[in-house]
Amino acid sequence: MDIVLASNNRGKLREIVGLFEKYNILLPSDLGIEYSYEEVGNTLLENAFGKATHLYRLLLEAGVEKAVLADDSGLFVEALGGEPGVRSARYGATDGKKLSDRERNEYLLERLKGKSNRKAYFLCCMVLVRGEDRFIIVQEKFEGKIIDSPRGSGGFGYDPLFYVPELNKTVAELPEEEKNKISHRARAAKVILRALNAP
Amino acid sequence: MDIVLASNNRGKLREIVGLFEKYNILLPSDLGIEYSYEEVGNTLLENAFGKATHLYRLLLEAGVEKAVLADDSGLFVEALGGEPGVRSARYGATDGKKLSDRERNEYLLERLKGKSNRKAYFLCCMVLVRGEDRFIIVQEKFEGKIIDSPRGSGGFGYDPLFYVPELNKTVAELPEEEKNKISHRARAAKVILRALNAP
Repeated sequence: MDIVLASNNRGKLREIVGLFEKYNILLPSDLGIEYSYEEVGNTLLENAFGKATHLYRLLLEAGVEKAVLADDSGLFVEALGGEPGVRSARYGATDGKKLSDRERNEYLLERLKGKSNRKAYFLCCMVLVRGEDRFIIVQEKFEGKIIDSPRGSGGFGYDPLFYVPELNKTVAELPEEEKNKISHRARAAKVILRALNAP
Repeated sequence: MDIVLASNNRGKLREIVGLFEKYNILLPSDLGIEYSYEEVGNTLLENAFGKATHLYRLLLEAGVEKAVLADDSGLFVEALGGEPGVRSARYGATDGKKLSDRERNEYLLERLKGKSNRKAYFLCCMVLVRGEDRFIIVQEKFEGKIIDSPRGSGGFGYDPLFYVPELNKTVAELPEEEKNKISHRARAAKVILRALNAP
């Protein structure tokens, strides 16, 4: 079965291909579709659902009937009232100019200075549109703590600051295979795969 | 596993108990919780998600941590631009006074007079909140046609007018067991059960 990913990001494609091994994952550009979407929703659900249904309609208009997958993820830090949350990718941006991953992590640590509560979690909301008006949506959680300085070189985004007590490692210190077993995105993907009856 | 149904309707309870056989389905009142929710969303998803998360929060406030299930369903008729849709239960209501099932079916037939396109479908959006910020949402579809006069005495709502060509019967002519295999609600429940790894 083909699944078109509502993204133009080759990095995300690679991660999704690893999670959905038995499916043929395509990007919109593979089908000659120009796709873009502005993530302005107030929740991960709004953004992920908006991305998926927008691409599904674009494909239908082009005469292509295929399943579409989208996700939106965010880091929620308790001491910051859930920040950066749904705005995780744009956290600390000024004048619409995004920070680099490294700058964004520095910005987060700055905001957390002096705060002893370091509890945080990642959420991933993943949407699979299977047909007109038919969809599966799963939101999953991955709990951890924000440490004081980055550790590890794997992953991306907030991974070097996100410490998993049970493993005594940050996500950036985990081999990709291990991250793909326990991350918020992996957990959401697993539930969708079970729902599709293809574990 | 206990699941609390976001509904006060004993009829819906009975149907959900039939679909989720291996689970212990409770009503909010079984836990001493007073629950009500006004379905004012523009989509089935908004209503079903609103119902489920509202009850989940009420339960948490009462110190109860249990999974919550909610659904919203509607009949969508092609020749009426998708009416009655998300307003299916209140279709034809005046001054907030709902019609009876029989009156509502007569109202629908009135609106369809002279229209030869009788294609229609039921949609069910079902939401299971499994924990804080963790949920599964499934929307499924059941296609058929609206016939000219009611047939059968089973089911409820639009069932006597909803004809399933493959079975040469209306939904109201189906035994409850058979309806519980093919209805929009049954299809959504099946996907959720698979996602929970408990087929």
